[in-house]
Amino acid sequence: MKSSFPPKPSPAVALAPGVWQIEFGEPEAHSPSSVFQPQMALDRLAALPAVEALPWDSASIRFEQTARGVQIYLPLAKTERVYGLGLQLLSFDQTGLRKTLRVNSDPKVDLGDSHAPVPFYVSTEGYAVLVDTARYASFDCGSALPVADPDRDQPEKFGFALGMEALYAIRDSDRPREMVVDIPGVTGTRIFLFAGPEMHLAVQRYNLFSGGGCVPPRWALGNWYRARSDFDQEQVLRFAQTLREDRMPCDVFGLEPGWQSRAYACSHVWSDKFPEPARLIEDLKSDHFETNLWTHAFTHTDSPIYSDLLPHSGNTSVFGGIVPDFLQPEAVERFSELYRTQTTSLGVSGFKLDECDHSDFMPYPWSFPEWTKFPSGVDGEQMHCLFGELFQKAILRSFEKEHRRTFGLVRNSQAFAAPLPFVLYSDLYNHQQFVRGILSASFSGLLWCPEIREASSGRDLLRRLQSGVASPMLQINAWYIKNPPWKQWDVAANNRDEFLPDSEGLEAACRGVLELRMRLIPYLHGAFYDYWKTGIPPFRALVMDYPNESESWKCDDQILMGDRLMAAPIVGESDTRSVWFPPGQWQSFWTGESFEGGRVTEISEDETRLPLYVKSGSLLPLARPTLHTADPGADELELRVYGNGAREISLMEERDPSIPFDETAINGVTFSWNSATGEIQMQRTKPEVPARYRVTSVTHFAGTNSGTVG
Amino acid sequence: MKSSFPPKPSPAVALAPGVWQIEFGEPEAHSPSSVFQPQMALDRLAALPAVEALPWDSASIRFEQTARGVQIYLPLAKTERVYGLGLQLLSFDQTGLRKTLRVNSDPKVDLGDSHAPVPFYVSTEGYAVLVDTARYASFDCGSALPVADPDRDQPEKFGFALGMEALYAIRDSDRPREMVVDIPGVTGTRIFLFAGPEMHLAVQRYNLFSGGGCVPPRWALGNWYRARSDFDQEQVLRFAQTLREDRMPCDVFGLEPGWQSRAYACSHVWSDKFPEPARLIEDLKSDHFETNLWTHAFTHTDSPIYSDLLPHSGNTSVFGGIVPDFLQPEAVERFSELYRTQTTSLGVSGFKLDECDHSDFMPYPWSFPEWTKFPSGVDGEQMHCLFGELFQKAILRSFEKEHRRTFGLVRNSQAFAAPLPFVLYSDLYNHQQFVRGILSASFSGLLWCPEIREASSGRDLLRRLQSGVASPMLQINAWYIKNPPWKQWDVAANNRDEFLPDSEGLEAACRGVLELRMRLIPYLHGAFYDYWKTGIPPFRALVMDYPNESESWKCDDQILMGDRLMAAPIVGESDTRSVWFPPGQWQSFWTGESFEGGRVTEISEDETRLPLYVKSGSLLPLARPTLHTADPGADELELRVYGNGAREISLMEERDPSIPFDETAINGVTFSWNSATGEIQMQRTKPEVPARYRVTSVTHFAGTNSGTVG
Repeated sequence: MKSSFPPKPSPAVALAPGVWQIEFGEPEAHSPSSVFQPQMALDRLAALPAVEALPWDSASIRFEQTARGVQIYLPLAKTERVYGLGLQLLSFDQTGLRKTLRVNSDPKVDLGDSHAPVPFYVSTEGYAVLVDTARYASFDCGSALPVADPDRDQPEKFGFALGMEALYAIRDSDRPREMVVDIPGVTGTRIFLFAGPEMHLAVQRYNLFSGGGCVPPRWALGNWYRARSDFDQEQVLRFAQTLREDRMPCDVFGLEPGWQSRAYACSHVWSDKFPEPARLIEDLKSDHFETNLWTHAFTHTDSPIYSDLLPHSGNTSVFGGIVPDFLQPEAVERFSELYRTQTTSLGVSGFKLDECDHSDFMPYPWSFPEWTKFPSGVDGEQMHCLFGELFQKAILRSFEKEHRRTFGLVRNSQAFAAPLPFVLYSDLYNHQQFVRGILSASFSGLLWCPEIREASSGRDLLRRLQSGVASPMLQINAWYIKNPPWKQWDVAANNRDEFLPDSEGLEAACRGVLELRMRLIPYLHGAFYDYWKTGIPPFRALVMDYPNESESWKCDDQILMGDRLMAAPIVGESDTRSVWFPPGQWQSFWTGESFEGGRVTEISEDETRLPLYVKSGSLLPLARPTLHTADPGADELELRVYGNGAREISLMEERDPSIPFDETAINGVTFSWNSATGEIQMQRTKPEVPARYRVTSVTHFAGTNSGTVG
Repeated sequence: MKSSFPPKPSPAVALAPGVWQIEFGEPEAHSPSSVFQPQMALDRLAALPAVEALPWDSASIRFEQTARGVQIYLPLAKTERVYGLGLQLLSFDQTGLRKTLRVNSDPKVDLGDSHAPVPFYVSTEGYAVLVDTARYASFDCGSALPVADPDRDQPEKFGFALGMEALYAIRDSDRPREMVVDIPGVTGTRIFLFAGPEMHLAVQRYNLFSGGGCVPPRWALGNWYRARSDFDQEQVLRFAQTLREDRMPCDVFGLEPGWQSRAYACSHVWSDKFPEPARLIEDLKSDHFETNLWTHAFTHTDSPIYSDLLPHSGNTSVFGGIVPDFLQPEAVERFSELYRTQTTSLGVSGFKLDECDHSDFMPYPWSFPEWTKFPSGVDGEQMHCLFGELFQKAILRSFEKEHRRTFGLVRNSQAFAAPLPFVLYSDLYNHQQFVRGILSASFSGLLWCPEIREASSGRDLLRRLQSGVASPMLQINAWYIKNPPWKQWDVAANNRDEFLPDSEGLEAACRGVLELRMRLIPYLHGAFYDYWKTGIPPFRALVMDYPNESESWKCDDQILMGDRLMAAPIVGESDTRSVWFPPGQWQSFWTGESFEGGRVTEISEDETRLPLYVKSGSLLPLARPTLHTADPGADELELRVYGNGAREISLMEERDPSIPFDETAINGVTFSWNSATGEIQMQRTKPEVPARYRVTSVTHFAGTNSGTVG
């Protein structure tokens, strides 16, 4: 229903410190906020630095209702840069671009197609905007300039210029620009505004408004391995055993579609290739592997819940199966109950939720079209915008029922996703794009996994693994590879059991990378705790912390990890690359070598080492590398001291990683170091609780002249 | 305005023999039919074979109004194939695909993005449908299958199948399928239905409903050459002279943006690099070159019509210029009047209308966004759907005022375009796609030019030129190449004036291809006359004539030319390829060698020869190859007799190619051949008018044993 008069936007309503809402017309019934109902973390929001206002008056936002839908015009200064819009693999800095947020699993061109587009952006001016829509909205980030006003604008005199040349001349002109959001087909909308004043604070407010970042169980920060799709129960167990024998650290073992009796579409029940699933999971567990299962939501006619789901499904099929309408509680209940009895109650720790985004560019489209009708009243376009997150919540139900913690993977997400224990992944495999994805996702409350499959060389494999270390999840997804990639990185040869002549050397180097991940787990776990507590993304782009440094604006290949590490993964065959060091003093993680901040430096690391840098002055606790996090050795810490060691560090100790995260159940522990005495202090928030971590050694990298203190 | 009750579709209203209209709800105010006002050729429609009905009851079409817009559900049998949707470079047979008809100048993925999408499709069952919308509608050509109904459908039992494998299994099932057209954001629509009963008749009815196909002046069927963008007046004249000295046939000489004082955006007036445009055009004319000028509609602040156009322009700029709203008569009048005085009145014969489609995938979008507002009330999405055709009509106005004929190029078109004297082209350059474009465009009343620029080898250049011969327009577009490509096909070397060692040999071979085009002009002109008279596309896909032969369904690289020729261009470096010969007897154009129809044959032609085949029994008149069509030698015909020569042929003779086409002013001439006497008969519709063509020789290719009869 359209209202009879031109609707005026409501005044901005404050919802929380530094968070406002504006409504215009009649917002869509099914929007991210109405569907996902974010549970704002008011206490944690209140703990952030206070902020009174946005950098501009929110009354300067113009909303318009036109025949095509709603357009929103927001301020955009010429000097300002904007980031976000969800996972964007093909671009990083969105300024000057025009993006249509279409859900798509194979974005080949930089027009906004994405596994997980989010109608959210954040500005270097220190504010963020969420447009609360489940439509394929377009964001014109200052690309479309108004017509020249002869009274106002100096006409551009670039003489004779073709195509891009002309375009650049215009873009460099002083014509005013705006952010324009176009939401076709709606008669109203709602936006949320997040103040800074710092850029990262705007992101933090958004994440805390969403409920705060998720905290993975410690095992989820270990290494993940998915075995070949056609392995049966015994092959899986044998393969897992080999990983232990080869001493390759691994915490999570993943099964691909072969565990189900039907896939694609899915029956959601075990195949007879897995005759004793309970024993399988138990056997894996006894060897300290968590079990993760692939699945998708499209339900085969053979599934025991097919007829129950049918009335709660869309009117088109995918891979021949029905599409559950997870907006209907009955569908969630029936679906989650089957998963509870079949898998969660047996001890499965998580899922990989596939194909919940939308078709890619295969010859034939496979996912449901936009005009599909769902019983809840949404159409296919809206369902594509909401489906991934609804699917996550349906699966989470099966864990909630069992009062169990989970961590998994998913191929689509949307707004307010920070609290959800899922990491995005893709079937694509461009290493550069995979690194960019870690960063682009970080603006919008998303996590991204640059998974590792095959490689073009041993060096390529090592570099890809290193990018995994610098990401929310290190997963080797060998679903079409029979043997581990370090035995043979070429798929065809691997599947013929032809191993590399030097496979032992490569295996050892890969082990080193996996061990680096294991060593970083206490630190990363702490960074995730900060994600929960303050909303700061554990892996993020440099521009978020250094928005005033123009070198950061295009920096889409360096990753801030927590509050003191920066990784600069190498893509390709070289051992060198340029690294921009933000202002301050930095040191090599490996050697303590000093790097002056505020400049670009050519660095070199051999193929076994991720280029990794520490803010000078930091303490950095590293775990003893073990084969899995359940090994008590994982609690033994080497305390690294970089520079003067004045930056103390806080970690968290968690009692039981199998039950849902509970802040009251964790023990905060702060390490400090007396540079005069070399003495370590550990201060715990709950001194009465048995300690987990203990420092077994100290290494001191003083600076350019590095030294070791026992 | 939405109507208060669910709208019911109107009954099908007959508009012409075999053409019906159905309205639903409140159709868009600006649709192709309301904007372009097709002038149906009722008399020519009435001359087609009578047809009473569609293959199905039009009442079986379901229209639905939903919150997202209108959906139309149309019958689609499992065995049926559908084609069309305008120019589609990435696919040919649209069956099973899902296309969103988004205007885009760089379609990288096969999702419907196109320079010239047209909401029109035609079926092998012998009917066609036009959806009268200027929105980015989606056509789901039987891709989305409904959910399985256990009472009706045999559940697919393909066991364990992943991804595409599962998809193919489903697609091969017997589930019912439909054509679903999704038009977001509208509250009504209108469709036009065209009956066959043959597939080509449905296309013919559509083209005649549009007004009939255009008839190019004879010179437009000659060879086109565009010189480098930065040439000045004297360089242009010198270059044109070189073409004559080198004896390379050329009828049209094209200037690129450099003729304008400002471009991009355009001033629409001459640059001082062309101080005497009248003399330039006169000099070219005296050497029998027609002049064609590049331009685009975006108007620079320096243009003399800038302030006049400003109130009739959109509210966003492109390349800094304004976008004229050609739905406003004032904009058309002001624009066409400037072009009349500046160019048409001086004797310019046509234009190349660039960038009227939409941005491609350059780093920054350049064209106006979908939310742009135009004074006529349309938005940017609608304007993108209409812009190319409106631009063509605005430029045509400047010729109408001078009572002059034109033929040119354009980068966007839409529905009802058959009568428009423009050929589509692109900045893309994939040879295979370029050949496919000739065919895909042919279903929807469009013409396509697979223009030639640089090449990867001399052979590649020859093969590309040969595809030009088998297309509506042979154009060499050397806008960034200083010397002709036959002197040097490599761009960088060419611009350094480094010629091939064997350039004379290549030049001679290229001359041979350009001469082949010249020889075919009388025949092609006749085929265009048929386009006007019967609506049959002069260049078209085999499936249009042979829809019941399954080999034709995917045949996207063989071209029917007129009613008796078939070209099978070779793409790449090979001299051989597979050719499917439709039922009947075929002969090599070159040798008369016979090929049995109804089978696939491996053929071979050396690099100088286009694989070209003639229906056995045909007469085929060929012009004497001249340097331009104004040469009286172009009227001297060699009459080729293939097989028994029983298929007589009708051509047309036109008096003045500079004035608009007028059927009453042409002379039809029919050639027949007496196999016994070898005598030729020519019968003219207007025996009193002086004849143009005369037969100077006869060649007889009897069949497998070819022979020549003087």
